Amino acid sequence: MNQTKILLDENEIPTHWYNVMADMPSPPAPPLGPDGKPVSPEMLGAIFPPAILEQEMSAERWIPIPDEIRQILCLWRPSPLYRAHRLEAALGTPARIYYKNEGVSPAGSHKPNTAVAQAYYNREAGIRRLTTETGAGQWGSSIALAGQMFGLEVRVYMVKVSYEQKPFRRSMMETWGAEVLASPTDTTRSGRQILAQDPDSPGSLGIAISEAVEEAASRPDTNYALGSVLNHVVLHQTIIGQEVKKQFEKAGDYPDAVFAPCGGGSNFGGVAFPFLADKAAGREVRLVAVEPTSCPTLTRGHYAYDFGDSVGLTPLMLMYTLGHDFVPPGIHAGGLRYHGDSPLVSQLHKEGLIEAVAVPQIATFDAGVQFARAEGIIPAPESCHAIRACIDEALRCKETGEAKTLFFNLSGHGHFDMSSYDKYFRGELEDYEYPEEAINAALDRLPKVG
Amino acid sequence: MNQTKILLDENEIPTHWYNVMADMPSPPAPPLGPDGKPVSPEMLGAIFPPAILEQEMSAERWIPIPDEIRQILCLWRPSPLYRAHRLEAALGTPARIYYKNEGVSPAGSHKPNTAVAQAYYNREAGIRRLTTETGAGQWGSSIALAGQMFGLEVRVYMVKVSYEQKPFRRSMMETWGAEVLASPTDTTRSGRQILAQDPDSPGSLGIAISEAVEEAASRPDTNYALGSVLNHVVLHQTIIGQEVKKQFEKAGDYPDAVFAPCGGGSNFGGVAFPFLADKAAGREVRLVAVEPTSCPTLTRGHYAYDFGDSVGLTPLMLMYTLGHDFVPPGIHAGGLRYHGDSPLVSQLHKEGLIEAVAVPQIATFDAGVQFARAEGIIPAPESCHAIRACIDEALRCKETGEAKTLFFNLSGHGHFDMSSYDKYFRGELEDYEYPEEAINAALDRLPKVG
Repeated sequence: MNQTKILLDENEIPTHWYNVMADMPSPPAPPLGPDGKPVSPEMLGAIFPPAILEQEMSAERWIPIPDEIRQILCLWRPSPLYRAHRLEAALGTPARIYYKNEGVSPAGSHKPNTAVAQAYYNREAGIRRLTTETGAGQWGSSIALAGQMFGLEVRVYMVKVSYEQKPFRRSMMETWGAEVLASPTDTTRSGRQILAQDPDSPGSLGIAISEAVEEAASRPDTNYALGSVLNHVVLHQTIIGQEVKKQFEKAGDYPDAVFAPCGGGSNFGGVAFPFLADKAAGREVRLVAVEPTSCPTLTRGHYAYDFGDSVGLTPLMLMYTLGHDFVPPGIHAGGLRYHGDSPLVSQLHKEGLIEAVAVPQIATFDAGVQFARAEGIIPAPESCHAIRACIDEALRCKETGEAKTLFFNLSGHGHFDMSSYDKYFRGELEDYEYPEEAINAALDRLPKVG
Repeated sequence: MNQTKILLDENEIPTHWYNVMADMPSPPAPPLGPDGKPVSPEMLGAIFPPAILEQEMSAERWIPIPDEIRQILCLWRPSPLYRAHRLEAALGTPARIYYKNEGVSPAGSHKPNTAVAQAYYNREAGIRRLTTETGAGQWGSSIALAGQMFGLEVRVYMVKVSYEQKPFRRSMMETWGAEVLASPTDTTRSGRQILAQDPDSPGSLGIAISEAVEEAASRPDTNYALGSVLNHVVLHQTIIGQEVKKQFEKAGDYPDAVFAPCGGGSNFGGVAFPFLADKAAGREVRLVAVEPTSCPTLTRGHYAYDFGDSVGLTPLMLMYTLGHDFVPPGIHAGGLRYHGDSPLVSQLHKEGLIEAVAVPQIATFDAGVQFARAEGIIPAPESCHAIRACIDEALRCKETGEAKTLFFNLSGHGHFDMSSYDKYFRGELEDYEYPEEAINAALDRLPKVG
């Protein structure tokens, strides 16, 4: 029989997170306040615990993972690395294809890797409650799970239209004991302000963030948790890439190319950054961030200081951006609908250390279905992006006859996205591509710095 | 750190299925035809392949598992055995609690274990298409997945009311390439007959079985696949119990009691039968089938010859039954709504080698939520039955101070059952208990044998 899965033992869960900031050619650009001056950690102390702020700024290469966090991660980690024998055969490619299945977490994606760490540090800091926002529900589920694991109350502001359309993600959060509110609510000033203008507001991620941050900032027992973009979030995800490297070692192989979906960047960074250290040491490995053509941040965005949220409440970050007021079309990979990107991922892209590619929606579902029929697992729409790019590369290998080793991260399963598959089968999905002028117009609306 | 998961390597997937018929104190009672005479394998040859019929009747203790089947099982097996440290702590019990997670299969339950085997033997027999019925969709999904793995076309007759209420299970089957029809259809005589009487018929599992069997019997390239009850189905599930035994050996422990949900009996039999061999050799182990109080087949049913389906098309089987015309209330553990039970499980219960217990619906969801909050995984409503019985035993241990070793099978995850959790949280679930007269009345409606 062919070996299908490369497994690690629980005691092989990494003991440290890898901090790419220690190995970047140039130091990361600092976040700036409204006055154009670097933001101090203290300014963020109202919503984040000290340990998280320290990680956000740290230049240490290796940051130890507390055993209490590793103990919770044991509930599903290390996640398996698969050799995709059946997909290779279906494609008829000489390439060897591997994927890591992050869908094995209880919440169904990689998101709990950081949610657990964030909940732990907040509890250590004496915090009793966490607030967060969620759109599609992946992040809200993860923080609900993590809060339950560490005895924290969790309140999730869920974008109202998702609250109504995705009742199952809501039930999932409630099963883990979280309180889920349809945002905008009348419990915050931000929410009331929106409702005063439009009592039937369907909500938005921007509004939900405002509500969650406002509540956290105004209650000393309550902090806020963010699911991507920031350095500490990407840091927590580096257990993925570290595990992958160990698993390739066990398999006696090494990837020529690594593909991961990229929205806010924590999944891509978590997978790719541990490989960057190898690259710095002279090893050849392509690191490819895959994004939707409908939200082409890295491939077509501007490298500039911009807000992290859509209403302009956060510090300014130097990153690839389509403009903080960019509203991506309603594609089904909700986790990839973000106007900006992790500043770390952005800078490494700017410096040419990583690549980015954009793929259109329908082609990602083509790839997801082909994958599901070969390998069984039904992937999340976000993951379908990485699968598409990897299959494209495998097909190029078929033409050239190259037996390359390809890897992609299966960031999550699609069990809560079956309505998107339904639309795909009924031919109701659309592709979107932005004209050059629309992309350029965003330049004028970027905030002026200093 | 405490060890959480006991893993096995792929090459430890069992090489043989365990056939409990070889070790039963008395030979199993044969299925009977309408004339009261034992049914010959030939009579079933129109819908089942020869290898399956041979397994159905075999007295061999060990039946080899072809490598091609094991290769597919590698996509998710061996499934992990968990030590439920956090659940133990939440209960404050001195008992050690273990569970096996069968929810890791692509279809989300143990069902693919037999679906893969059935698809394989059908392909080996030159069959090109499979038909089956599905209610909640667990079985239909599994056979869709398995058919795809072996290049067989699959047509699933899905009970119309489920087809409409559970579109996500339908999309899942379509993702794996199956054709899903809302039953009753106008493509079969059985379906047309029902529609003539009631054009708006919501369908039933009985009707869907009739349609699937009728089509399989009338097309030489097409066979039928069943997801529980029959001997070969239970046989294929014995890989679960065999893996559990190996995993307990690795953990240096052994269960005092084994709990598994029991509907048609293949999940319970698959888990428990490999332990029966130990029991026969003098080892103490309680084997407990857990069923709903609303469908109390083993605990309150009659041990008698009855039809396997509700319309009376199948051979007569000697089993515990509530009467083939018994319509269980619409509880959310759809997989446990069966009037009868596996003849093997039934006979072993009759002979006192296994136990059975019935638990009410709301208490099963209480247990499921308590489990999810401790261990993370959201269980299927069927699995919640085993969890309930196991928690009850753990709480008895707390009273007596006994440090027993308890095990339950987590037969599947609840990702496609979140609407049931929703109803639980909203207080909309009901408990059902049958009055003695209703149970006794079924006796008069059992078919006369011979």
